[in-house]
Amino acid sequence: MQPSGIRAFFDLVLGMRDVISLGVGEPDFVTPWQIREAGIFSLEQGFTSYTSNKGLYKLRLSISRYLKNKYALDYSPDDEILITVGVSEGFDLALRAIINPQDKVLIPLPSYVSYGPLAELAGGIPVYIDTKKDKFKLTPRSLEKAIDKKTKALILNYPVNPTGVSYNKKELEEIKKVLLRHRILCISDEIYGDLTYEFEHTPFATLSGAKNSTIYLDGFSKTYAMTGWRVGFVCGPKEIIAAMTKIHQYTIMCVPITSQMAACEALQGGRKAVEEMKREYKRRREFIVDILNKIGLDCARPDGAFYAFPSIENTGYNSLEFAHQLLKREKVAVVPGTAFGASGEGYVRISYASSIDKLKEAMLRIEQFLKKA
Amino acid sequence: MQPSGIRAFFDLVLGMRDVISLGVGEPDFVTPWQIREAGIFSLEQGFTSYTSNKGLYKLRLSISRYLKNKYALDYSPDDEILITVGVSEGFDLALRAIINPQDKVLIPLPSYVSYGPLAELAGGIPVYIDTKKDKFKLTPRSLEKAIDKKTKALILNYPVNPTGVSYNKKELEEIKKVLLRHRILCISDEIYGDLTYEFEHTPFATLSGAKNSTIYLDGFSKTYAMTGWRVGFVCGPKEIIAAMTKIHQYTIMCVPITSQMAACEALQGGRKAVEEMKREYKRRREFIVDILNKIGLDCARPDGAFYAFPSIENTGYNSLEFAHQLLKREKVAVVPGTAFGASGEGYVRISYASSIDKLKEAMLRIEQFLKKA
Repeated sequence: MQPSGIRAFFDLVLGMRDVISLGVGEPDFVTPWQIREAGIFSLEQGFTSYTSNKGLYKLRLSISRYLKNKYALDYSPDDEILITVGVSEGFDLALRAIINPQDKVLIPLPSYVSYGPLAELAGGIPVYIDTKKDKFKLTPRSLEKAIDKKTKALILNYPVNPTGVSYNKKELEEIKKVLLRHRILCISDEIYGDLTYEFEHTPFATLSGAKNSTIYLDGFSKTYAMTGWRVGFVCGPKEIIAAMTKIHQYTIMCVPITSQMAACEALQGGRKAVEEMKREYKRRREFIVDILNKIGLDCARPDGAFYAFPSIENTGYNSLEFAHQLLKREKVAVVPGTAFGASGEGYVRISYASSIDKLKEAMLRIEQFLKKA
Repeated sequence: MQPSGIRAFFDLVLGMRDVISLGVGEPDFVTPWQIREAGIFSLEQGFTSYTSNKGLYKLRLSISRYLKNKYALDYSPDDEILITVGVSEGFDLALRAIINPQDKVLIPLPSYVSYGPLAELAGGIPVYIDTKKDKFKLTPRSLEKAIDKKTKALILNYPVNPTGVSYNKKELEEIKKVLLRHRILCISDEIYGDLTYEFEHTPFATLSGAKNSTIYLDGFSKTYAMTGWRVGFVCGPKEIIAAMTKIHQYTIMCVPITSQMAACEALQGGRKAVEEMKREYKRRREFIVDILNKIGLDCARPDGAFYAFPSIENTGYNSLEFAHQLLKREKVAVVPGTAFGASGEGYVRISYASSIDKLKEAMLRIEQFLKKA
């Protein structure tokens, strides 16, 4: 198993000065004050002990109500929701719970760096599906082609890290049909779901007939700028949640209580701050996509998340060379598309979770880099 | 894999009123204010993002210095220390990193409930060593007898949960000799090391020649009354720490930053509070052990941790019956010894991490129970 390609590249960045990093997948915002205050208040009150393994009932109830109100999605706080150390732990638990040795797990590429390694760690075999030829979207046809008798699950992520692509309801319905026909589970990573700009986000579990075979992963890290709190959740059929909880109880015990208390407040009073951050991400998206296309790096408008994924093919560099040269000559750090799998060749990921000022300066530097190239 | 026996029993307790619970393995103290304040301050300052996968350098450095000062133990903050979500995650990572399918892992019984299941989850085979006949201590002889060619590691825990037994340096040396002769790794869970009352705690890694084959697990939960913060650490040979970090980076990312900030303060200014709590545990230990022996439950004086492990054999009940009847009739919750493995039959675990007043009332109720039995 290889260490993460993103980390390898950013070890380089660490040694350098005056670098503008558009690399890391993390909001540049501090967690909204109201949410931090809830954490502070709980510490003042002396909440410093274990919670239930599943997570605070209050938080599970808030999540249950939130999903019901927003998506008409029904998950019982008693046995269909588990609080996890971010979506990362949720993934690890889901795969450990469902994978038997040699089961195959489908992963559309390019994808977030963890999926393949986590599937392998759980004893499964990752099977990658190239989406480059389909504008970075998984199609029913390419999905169907990748399935065989050992296929246990599809890892779906939308909006997609690193491409920013998302799926509308009609597209999801088509994917769902294929999965149901072959009785394949969908592990749906919707951590960027709230950061969808062009249309309403549709949770996979809301599709008719899909809920019983969907493991729905989400969390607070991106939407509420809460990466450092490490709090996410998993919703799913109770047998699967029970199996995941059994592992979680031995390996983690519970998510830190302060983080869970803050997450409760995020759901209760955090919406306004989220809308503000979302407006700002959208503004940056317009800005960066326009400039990238203007200076000659072909870039589709991302549907969601906070990444642009421009093509750098016409520069003559491959992804890794482009990123290395840009870092070396102009001190701008972006992630080579190949860090997200071979299908990312010819592209780089640019995070726009940075201030407009930084983005402006970075774009000037990239323009300069292209002129000299 | 079975869910934890402790949890099963305490699901019963949840439905009842006026129960005095001496069951859960958690300090009754709130985290000392100074440590909570450090967490609060870090939130006020806006520290809410990811840390390095390995954990904050500042925390790793503090741990390195602490171990150097206290035990003359040398671990580099750069590549020999990893910050984990409690000792629980450390165990899971250690086993996932070192176990090949069908490797055997030795576990002295009675033991903390997680060890066996975690070894199985990692693909290993737990091999249990009964210590009851040896006053609940692992002996070189019983260790030697359990070893074969597939033995990869010994899980050692001292002071022992649930018995409170610990090992002095001479005893540890004898265990070490056997392990070194057979090239077997020691995964040493020393989470209660700081709560040793009768003699100085000796970390296994300080034994001459042992460091290179020891994975040393410790954390802040018990010593600093920080269970809910979920922060522990692993020290070990850098190849093993690197392998564990690779898994941790995908499955957890990092320990919550607030917990790490607070842990820094625990090491810097938390000592006084620890000494106070330790004095109080010791006082309770004297109290409870004296009474237990007086009312007819034979109980050795525990060397450390905060558990008494009296024999209930002369009551005519087995462990499970005793615990159930005591709960039903007198509303005192203790854990049946069998929750910690078959070797715990004939015993119950009583946590003295409760106020003296509660302990007094509980002991009165137990005395009454015994009279009627």
